[in-house]
Amino acid sequence: MTTLVFGHKSPDTDSTGSPIIWAWYMSEIMGTPAKAVLLGEPNTEALFMLDHWKLDKPEIITDVEAGQDVVIVDTNNPAELPDTINDANITAIIDHHKLVGGLETAGPITIRIEPLACTATIMWKMIGKDIAQMPSNVKGAMLTCILSDTLEFRSPTTTQEDKAIAWSLAEDLEVDIPTYAAQMFAAKSDVSSFSEAELLRMDSKEYEIAGKQFRISVLETTSPEAILSRKAELMAAMPAVAQEDGADQVLLFVVDILNEEATMLIPNELSKTVAEKSFDAKVTGDTVVLPGIMSRKKQIIPFLKV
Amino acid sequence: MTTLVFGHKSPDTDSTGSPIIWAWYMSEIMGTPAKAVLLGEPNTEALFMLDHWKLDKPEIITDVEAGQDVVIVDTNNPAELPDTINDANITAIIDHHKLVGGLETAGPITIRIEPLACTATIMWKMIGKDIAQMPSNVKGAMLTCILSDTLEFRSPTTTQEDKAIAWSLAEDLEVDIPTYAAQMFAAKSDVSSFSEAELLRMDSKEYEIAGKQFRISVLETTSPEAILSRKAELMAAMPAVAQEDGADQVLLFVVDILNEEATMLIPNELSKTVAEKSFDAKVTGDTVVLPGIMSRKKQIIPFLKV
Repeated sequence: MTTLVFGHKSPDTDSTGSPIIWAWYMSEIMGTPAKAVLLGEPNTEALFMLDHWKLDKPEIITDVEAGQDVVIVDTNNPAELPDTINDANITAIIDHHKLVGGLETAGPITIRIEPLACTATIMWKMIGKDIAQMPSNVKGAMLTCILSDTLEFRSPTTTQEDKAIAWSLAEDLEVDIPTYAAQMFAAKSDVSSFSEAELLRMDSKEYEIAGKQFRISVLETTSPEAILSRKAELMAAMPAVAQEDGADQVLLFVVDILNEEATMLIPNELSKTVAEKSFDAKVTGDTVVLPGIMSRKKQIIPFLKV
Repeated sequence: MTTLVFGHKSPDTDSTGSPIIWAWYMSEIMGTPAKAVLLGEPNTEALFMLDHWKLDKPEIITDVEAGQDVVIVDTNNPAELPDTINDANITAIIDHHKLVGGLETAGPITIRIEPLACTATIMWKMIGKDIAQMPSNVKGAMLTCILSDTLEFRSPTTTQEDKAIAWSLAEDLEVDIPTYAAQMFAAKSDVSSFSEAELLRMDSKEYEIAGKQFRISVLETTSPEAILSRKAELMAAMPAVAQEDGADQVLLFVVDILNEEATMLIPNELSKTVAEKSFDAKVTGDTVVLPGIMSRKKQIIPFLKV
């Protein structure tokens, strides 16, 4: 049976590239046939990565059959995976997020979770010396994943390991990191084709604070003005998105990668309270700038209060 | 803050030795002060290991305070840990059991689970070249853990990695494995001082089959006759142990390490049904011999039917 390797339902660059890396490693080095698949349409940066490195776009699947061998990467959260995930035969989990609980396995399996910025960094460590056999386009995916998740080393999630591995891959591939990262971020920032509802769901995680369900959306961009010019439409779309997704409120943070700050939209009193209590911010209008805020995982979620 | 490193509530050799190994590694190599502790009284084989290698017996604790830094080894099951475990600050989990679900962490942490026979084997791989700095008595604990969990390589859970690492440690320590393992198993087999209820709980795990709760107890021994001579008393003690522990039935397997077989006690119709349906056994009396059965994880739990 071919093992399916996939990340979460809203594939960003790491959730698109890491399955490609691991499926290569399993098939070519471990000798276990494996195939990368996606649980949704990849974002524009992930599509840029596939195009730039001439990688085939993985097939999109929506469900897994009972007993199917699967490897889960870049998440351990059942809410971000197919409903039937616990009926599949999970053979490994490789991730860099907090342990959520909810996944169960029939027997002992390989689980590797480390507090690094990127799943691909963990895979580099696991692959070890066999990296020498990795084709350039898979190495290119690895470099792209690390630059994406670290926001070119600007995110506070960045570790020395993420940096050192990215530098070594870039040297090997003869990639100039600033030039390449600028292309990546331009691709990620080109969100003109998406509806407001799609933007609010593109990179979002559910989180509960004091009994209220929040959908916490982050849009990382080098062109914040392109998103903020649609501020009124985004705020108008929030109630319907929240209701459809079973949340009380959508919180949207537009992360300005180059200026290292986030702009939070303030459509109502609840959002204003969250901004003031969580980030000690003084809110006067319908947006508030949060200097230095880049990472949902490190700088937003742990501080949320209502 | 000193990090507390502990295994599960019924400390066998691996759950006693692995915290000692990891506390050494954290304190001496990683530079993070750490202390091995136990969540219960170690078994007789674990006590032999401490005595033989002149290791201090770790302090026994029953609870952890909120916010306490802890590393969990040899389990990921909240039922085998203090009730307040999710209020502690779990900084790492190192284990070789199936993922149960239920543990949650505030942020991303280090989790390393591999399908190897022994937690200490995983630690050897994680420690890498720094093993050269490990004192002999900690290496001795590591060797003892591997020989214990593999039943001197007889258990079907044994992998080539467990074997190779044990052989290398034995050579380094100038230990003759057959002689040393015989001493270990003699210590484990000396259970004369334990009550029947203690024996039934010594190495047991809870498991649900078809809505019924079972306490599945295993006693590994080189002297099965010493335990089986107390068969009537053990069966008489089962109902009270089951009731106190919220189970419907205790299943006891006496594993004969040298003859590589298990004797299952059959106190009632329910146990008889389990034996016949799960192991294709023909039960005629109040015990049944199951040839080749050594491992609860690999050969008992996955096959249980009622």
